[in-house]
Amino acid sequence: MSLQNVKALVFDTFGTVVDWRGSVTRMGERLAAKKAIKGVDWEAFARAWRSGYRPGMAPVISGERAWTPIDVIHREILDRILVTFGIEGKFSESEKADMNLMWHRLDPWPDSVPGLLRLKQTHIISPLSNGATQLLVNMAKRAGIPWDLILSSDVTRAYKRDPRAYQAAIAALGMQPNEVMMCAAHNDDLEAARGQGMRTAYINRPTEYGIDQKADFKADSDWDIITDHIGGIADTLDA
Amino acid sequence: MSLQNVKALVFDTFGTVVDWRGSVTRMGERLAAKKAIKGVDWEAFARAWRSGYRPGMAPVISGERAWTPIDVIHREILDRILVTFGIEGKFSESEKADMNLMWHRLDPWPDSVPGLLRLKQTHIISPLSNGATQLLVNMAKRAGIPWDLILSSDVTRAYKRDPRAYQAAIAALGMQPNEVMMCAAHNDDLEAARGQGMRTAYINRPTEYGIDQKADFKADSDWDIITDHIGGIADTLDA
Repeated sequence: MSLQNVKALVFDTFGTVVDWRGSVTRMGERLAAKKAIKGVDWEAFARAWRSGYRPGMAPVISGERAWTPIDVIHREILDRILVTFGIEGKFSESEKADMNLMWHRLDPWPDSVPGLLRLKQTHIISPLSNGATQLLVNMAKRAGIPWDLILSSDVTRAYKRDPRAYQAAIAALGMQPNEVMMCAAHNDDLEAARGQGMRTAYINRPTEYGIDQKADFKADSDWDIITDHIGGIADTLDA
Repeated sequence: MSLQNVKALVFDTFGTVVDWRGSVTRMGERLAAKKAIKGVDWEAFARAWRSGYRPGMAPVISGERAWTPIDVIHREILDRILVTFGIEGKFSESEKADMNLMWHRLDPWPDSVPGLLRLKQTHIISPLSNGATQLLVNMAKRAGIPWDLILSSDVTRAYKRDPRAYQAAIAALGMQPNEVMMCAAHNDDLEAARGQGMRTAYINRPTEYGIDQKADFKADSDWDIITDHIGGIADTLDA
């Protein structure tokens, strides 16, 4: 069948492979307990942090702002929301720097590692993420995510949905676009990948953003694979 | 001890992790049997191919030649030595293109995969190779080399021993230079890495080049670790 020539699977990471909202909430709650900080809704804090992410990348994608690593963007948002939540005075500079690394320590969704281990037996697997190499490798080591390589935004030097992010990944793999399948929980990521000739797999993660979720409750197009867990991609490719 | 802050181990690949001479010899002999080509010394062919490698990179390192992927350099040498060995007429263009991919299919030294599996439990492990991402990931998938990520010459955009190759690897890992250990069978590679503040491990591979071997029969300096197998690095780091 038509997916037989797919050789590499590249994954969106935040939201698709790892549960940033649950992870940041748990880390925030642990930190608050340790520091005896009360009254903060850490789930709202996680959503607020994430909501600054796309606006933070936008001027880089448009070319208005020079290349800026994702850790820097995360830190800028953190500094703002610490004020919003009224806790900016509770943390030292080194504690804030460490908080920013919460994004390096996100937990996978329960199906992610088992699904990726299956896919790794037959395909090259990599993130294709707006995260930096350092962030993605730290996350993978901690969580046991078995990537074959790391295609990060500092390899591609572009943030998705910039077409150059997909083009650079295809080029690094030395493959034809239709030999590479973009796997993501976000329809617009798949749309951009399909625009570059890539194959597409949609993994439904309808709880990713919690009450902030406005889109991606279901597949919006006839993606090559549509599933609700990463093992579902293996089910189709093995068939 | 002073190596306790090492977090990532980056490996030279050709000669250090994989046995290019034995591998190319075996693949050449199999190809010759299939094509009924007689009278070629494939071990000499392998050495001749490799001997064009450093001269091929030199003008790129000096800046005389624009960035040129290693597959292109390998192919230019192949086209020359097919003539030298009098067999240029025996192969179609697609067969030559496939021969060039022999460098993607090299076998590890027997100690490499077991040693790397040990090191992967405690450290980030990556190639830091003049190979391209595509070459290194194909090689790793085929041979079961368990890299955490792939730091290739198209990530660093520089060929070792250009200092920029080491600097780019350290930057991609987001670490201090002394948190990264260069592991290689080549003293000059370690010298260049030490020049950038990296830690160093020498793995003795005195048969790498066969009768062409002129250097690297032993450690020429007081590298942080000196061993004759990759597991020897784990022995020291675990101690």
